[in-house]
Amino acid sequence: MPAIIECVPNFSEGRRKAVVDKIVFSIRSVPGIKVLDIEMDVDHNRCVVTFTGGKDNIQEAAFRGARAASELIDLNKHKGEHPRMGALDVLPFVPISGVNIDDCIEIANKVGARIAKDLKIPVYLYEAAAKKPERKNLENVRKGQFEGLRELIRTDDSRYPDYGPRMLHPTAGAVAVGARMPLIAFNVNLRSTDVAIAKEIARKIRSSSGGLPHVKALGFKLENRGMVQVSMNLTDYGITPISIVFEEIEKEARERGVEIAESEVVGLIPLSALCDATARYLKLHSFSSDQVLERRIWG
Amino acid sequence: MPAIIECVPNFSEGRRKAVVDKIVFSIRSVPGIKVLDIEMDVDHNRCVVTFTGGKDNIQEAAFRGARAASELIDLNKHKGEHPRMGALDVLPFVPISGVNIDDCIEIANKVGARIAKDLKIPVYLYEAAAKKPERKNLENVRKGQFEGLRELIRTDDSRYPDYGPRMLHPTAGAVAVGARMPLIAFNVNLRSTDVAIAKEIARKIRSSSGGLPHVKALGFKLENRGMVQVSMNLTDYGITPISIVFEEIEKEARERGVEIAESEVVGLIPLSALCDATARYLKLHSFSSDQVLERRIWG
Repeated sequence: MPAIIECVPNFSEGRRKAVVDKIVFSIRSVPGIKVLDIEMDVDHNRCVVTFTGGKDNIQEAAFRGARAASELIDLNKHKGEHPRMGALDVLPFVPISGVNIDDCIEIANKVGARIAKDLKIPVYLYEAAAKKPERKNLENVRKGQFEGLRELIRTDDSRYPDYGPRMLHPTAGAVAVGARMPLIAFNVNLRSTDVAIAKEIARKIRSSSGGLPHVKALGFKLENRGMVQVSMNLTDYGITPISIVFEEIEKEARERGVEIAESEVVGLIPLSALCDATARYLKLHSFSSDQVLERRIWG
Repeated sequence: MPAIIECVPNFSEGRRKAVVDKIVFSIRSVPGIKVLDIEMDVDHNRCVVTFTGGKDNIQEAAFRGARAASELIDLNKHKGEHPRMGALDVLPFVPISGVNIDDCIEIANKVGARIAKDLKIPVYLYEAAAKKPERKNLENVRKGQFEGLRELIRTDDSRYPDYGPRMLHPTAGAVAVGARMPLIAFNVNLRSTDVAIAKEIARKIRSSSGGLPHVKALGFKLENRGMVQVSMNLTDYGITPISIVFEEIEKEARERGVEIAESEVVGLIPLSALCDATARYLKLHSFSSDQVLERRIWG
């Protein structure tokens, strides 16, 4: 099976479609790259491009995107609600199949080093690619944004970039390059109108309050449906599978005399997460995503 | 998402590799066709080719395979353990994605009519494509085999072909063309050494003794593992999903004081069967296989 890596660059341009088109064109110009999605946000003045490729062409496409952004976007003129520090602002690599997070960390390092060297843009490594623990969190990396970082990068030793010059690129700023697991947006709806129960369960299961690792969770009321919702992002389903999250919520709900009404996956889910869930449900031993018929056809 | 149809022709040649190679070459010569598997069986003197394609090219590839077989295989000289009536013996079309069984019945009719017309080979439609109820079962269609059918096709009105001449092709015989759902081979192992329990549960759930529709099941002892097994073929997981089969066996086992140890999928499973199982397990509402990340990449 061929390696598949996803790359999800965020560019600081969400209004001028011609600029976004040129950036995407530069990404698409690399053979074997598939652009899955382009989302422009006018208020944030930002766009998110999702594309996939193999171990080598993903690097080339990411670099061409970075280069195009540095030629087309001037952060001195950029206004938008979303925090940002670069023309290409963040550049995460995500393992989809036939590769793991370590491969993506290696790719982040190679692409980061090349952006720094060829484009003279300082590069910070974040999330799984971070070399300093405080840089795992993107918000720490981006603190001060383009305007503030211009000074800090030179004066504050904790803001030294991982690659490249200790000064911002005059128009393209700096870029955060990282590696992370695919994210699953997963909501579970409870047959209750008491939002306190959803909030309590969310607190119980989320990582930040000592629950399951790699789970972000909040409780909401679904006014029109007479239900409450535990709304989640699963940030590493390899460590905490979706089935474990579901069963944990089921247990917590049962203890409070509440039933799960239904759940939903918002957006995309990787095939291997589906395989995990099915294997757990059916007690399958030695099941592999290679057994999925479509993989033979597509792979 | 593009339509994907699987075609699994069985040819009456399992010994002369050069002949099989030529047949497969003729199938592969159609653009967009992907050959997934070729299995030659020396004892049966038969080979099974598995390939996929879209609505149109699958027809062309199937026809070219039929033509090549009719030019290369002489059934008068064929000996093997497996029953057969044609050089190309059976030709089933299987819906994988973006198509349903009715599309495959239509394709079976078109390809069958073309084989009859262009190659002068009589064609019987079987399984879901059968026009007479008794022809649903392939064994009824093939009764008498090549040698016996030569006479019966002319003298027995019940053996009139669906397409083509009322006489066998002198060397290529006749062909059964059909449509069927993908088959899932699914085994469930019970923590028991009493094979009677596995046999009882198999009888309880299989279609032939009034159990679940589209389930074939037998009970076996797994001597070396201290377990017994309910071994199944699910012949239409759209009607009886794998999760229902699993839960039914779990219920029956529990009533007999026995636990499920583990289960296994032998060979391939279609993506939509995985999606069904996950959706049932996690109570997902409105989940679609379009949400599988890899489908976006591959599709």
